[in-house]
Amino acid sequence: MRIERVGGGVTAPQGFRAAGVHCGIKKNGKPDLSLVVSDAPSTQAAGLFTTNLAKAAPVVISQRYLAASGGAARAIVTNSGCANACTGPQGMADAEEMAALAARALGSPAEQVLVASTGVIGVNLRMDALRTGIPSAMAALSENGGSNAAQAIMTTDPFPKEASVEVFTDVGSFRVGGMAKGSGMIEPRMATMLGYLTTDAAVDQGLLHRALTDACRFTFNAITVDGEPSTNDCVLALANGMSGVVIDEGLYPALFEGFRQVAHELALGIVRGGEGATKLVAITVTGAASDADGWTAARAIANSPLVKTAVHGGDPNWGRLVAAAGRSGAKFVLDGARVQIGPLVLFENGRPFDERASDAAEYLKGSSLEITVDVGAGGGHSATVWTCDLTAEYVKINAEYRT
Amino acid sequence: MRIERVGGGVTAPQGFRAAGVHCGIKKNGKPDLSLVVSDAPSTQAAGLFTTNLAKAAPVVISQRYLAASGGAARAIVTNSGCANACTGPQGMADAEEMAALAARALGSPAEQVLVASTGVIGVNLRMDALRTGIPSAMAALSENGGSNAAQAIMTTDPFPKEASVEVFTDVGSFRVGGMAKGSGMIEPRMATMLGYLTTDAAVDQGLLHRALTDACRFTFNAITVDGEPSTNDCVLALANGMSGVVIDEGLYPALFEGFRQVAHELALGIVRGGEGATKLVAITVTGAASDADGWTAARAIANSPLVKTAVHGGDPNWGRLVAAAGRSGAKFVLDGARVQIGPLVLFENGRPFDERASDAAEYLKGSSLEITVDVGAGGGHSATVWTCDLTAEYVKINAEYRT
Repeated sequence: MRIERVGGGVTAPQGFRAAGVHCGIKKNGKPDLSLVVSDAPSTQAAGLFTTNLAKAAPVVISQRYLAASGGAARAIVTNSGCANACTGPQGMADAEEMAALAARALGSPAEQVLVASTGVIGVNLRMDALRTGIPSAMAALSENGGSNAAQAIMTTDPFPKEASVEVFTDVGSFRVGGMAKGSGMIEPRMATMLGYLTTDAAVDQGLLHRALTDACRFTFNAITVDGEPSTNDCVLALANGMSGVVIDEGLYPALFEGFRQVAHELALGIVRGGEGATKLVAITVTGAASDADGWTAARAIANSPLVKTAVHGGDPNWGRLVAAAGRSGAKFVLDGARVQIGPLVLFENGRPFDERASDAAEYLKGSSLEITVDVGAGGGHSATVWTCDLTAEYVKINAEYRT
Repeated sequence: MRIERVGGGVTAPQGFRAAGVHCGIKKNGKPDLSLVVSDAPSTQAAGLFTTNLAKAAPVVISQRYLAASGGAARAIVTNSGCANACTGPQGMADAEEMAALAARALGSPAEQVLVASTGVIGVNLRMDALRTGIPSAMAALSENGGSNAAQAIMTTDPFPKEASVEVFTDVGSFRVGGMAKGSGMIEPRMATMLGYLTTDAAVDQGLLHRALTDACRFTFNAITVDGEPSTNDCVLALANGMSGVVIDEGLYPALFEGFRQVAHELALGIVRGGEGATKLVAITVTGAASDADGWTAARAIANSPLVKTAVHGGDPNWGRLVAAAGRSGAKFVLDGARVQIGPLVLFENGRPFDERASDAAEYLKGSSLEITVDVGAGGGHSATVWTCDLTAEYVKINAEYRT
């Protein structure tokens, strides 16, 4: 197996077309309606959805449709600028109509269209905009439309997130494409904000869901911007089989790795473009007593406002890393703990190495950082979570969001 | 029972003297050494300590001494400017010497002196400063020294926190005094940062520990600034009996209420003086399925950076309150949920009341706010957590802390 990067995002695999248009939900005239369509009637679909109990209407509807169709889907319709969350029965009816509008144009059953929304919570969708917009987006569908689609799902994102690869196997090659959005309210538990993967491999339901779950575990589910799993998070995957490569158990690692690489690039893009973020930080916890403990400690450090502000200020304040690990709930043994910032060990065997602080401060001036904390529990378990710094700009963006 | 406010802080009760001096740990010349002494040799003591597994040396030593003495203590010595945390065997020896220096001057066993430290993690104490400073502080002890002592325990606190009351019962009156510090790294689980309560009631170990635990549950343990339980948190109580009022089961409510009122005022002072804070916010969760669920949801909302920035910006963004409750882990039923900002209901029965948003924005301009979220689980359980807004100033303080 060999993997190469290719261009095209969600339209990189054969048989996928996409579009992104402005339909009138965003007041600033930016693209706010995104469409991804597979040309193969038997396209398989899988989805992971937010664990937030305040699920948005499109999340409820997409989950219901996936179950009803047995995991078949032809299209994903997404609007930005309005989350259609906490909108009561009207919100559910609107999400259903959104799917129906696309289904009618495609000549497919409504439950083969998945819907997603992102934006402000508690506001109803402008259905008049969608009633004219969805047909317009259908007319704009193109094999090169991936990047338009990726732009149309953005809210506070500073840049669009797209990725695509070609996976070469002994029996031929297939492609995996993807796009994602997300900048605030980011700490996925099952999935984050909106992420879409497409592939022209032929994959049955079971393997598709497994590949999506496995790939997300180390990508979309391993990032955080502000520790806030949203009401609308979902990651969807479509597989249309048009490459002719059929994924079986033997080829599963190739599909997983294709999904993982595309999802990794998209997920890191979300963190790099986190609200107000200036630095991408990989937090790795080692020496954890269990796998769960590793994740618990890594998440606690990655969400610590004191760690995130220290990183922002370029302060190698390893004490905050120790304090965050110590209060995380994971097993922690101070005497065995160890903190490493970049290549520099700043604390080990109960002893600080303050003479290395100025080198560490220099390292922290970079925009892509690695921090490792051994929690001293003597276990062989580790976990990596990607986070960003916490800045005054994050406060500004979120204090002014609707005003 | 009747309770009246009195002045004096920790020295309000009879038989307590205190001092606050500069000994040389802080470079800026501000007070950095605080001493609280009881004149009664048989003073009872109780303590609640951080649940952080990276416990600072003075926390370990104070816990050990309380156990060794059977809950007797004559004095509390506190330094600010250095947390003596993550300092290895040297840190433990320094904490022991700190207690011994005060014990020698008092003529008491070392284990009857409790020690506490607050400030930067990972730096050793300057023992030369303490060797001359502790005798100086002893010489400065005064019955009016409460406010000096409260100033000497401050770090990033914008103002000192003191409170004291007199509790009138059928068998006479007694007083409760207190002081506290804390501004960042605040989310107590067992206790927060440093809090001290003194009383001239006579209380045995069992009742003293119970009153401290019960009072802290709704005060020090119900506040958060940034969701960061620190390495050094502790709340200590001393009872010297000099009022002649003996607390038994019948008088327990009087002691509890005295402790609760003093601790409430101190705890709210910590939040109001939280790093960068401009607003104090009481988050009340109602309709929770269990007591634990009420606390879980209230803490999640109170620590949500999106809620805290919305409050800062005066944006009545109730969707963020719903989202935080929905992802908290507590049982949450969207259709039964209800959000109230001040007197204004903004979401109920799945319906937003956006016409009230401008009134809610007006209410949010205040500096002391109340927000209530019913999680719709139909239980009769509720909880209140006090928090503050998240501001650019918080980021500034913590990005620049050591540089």
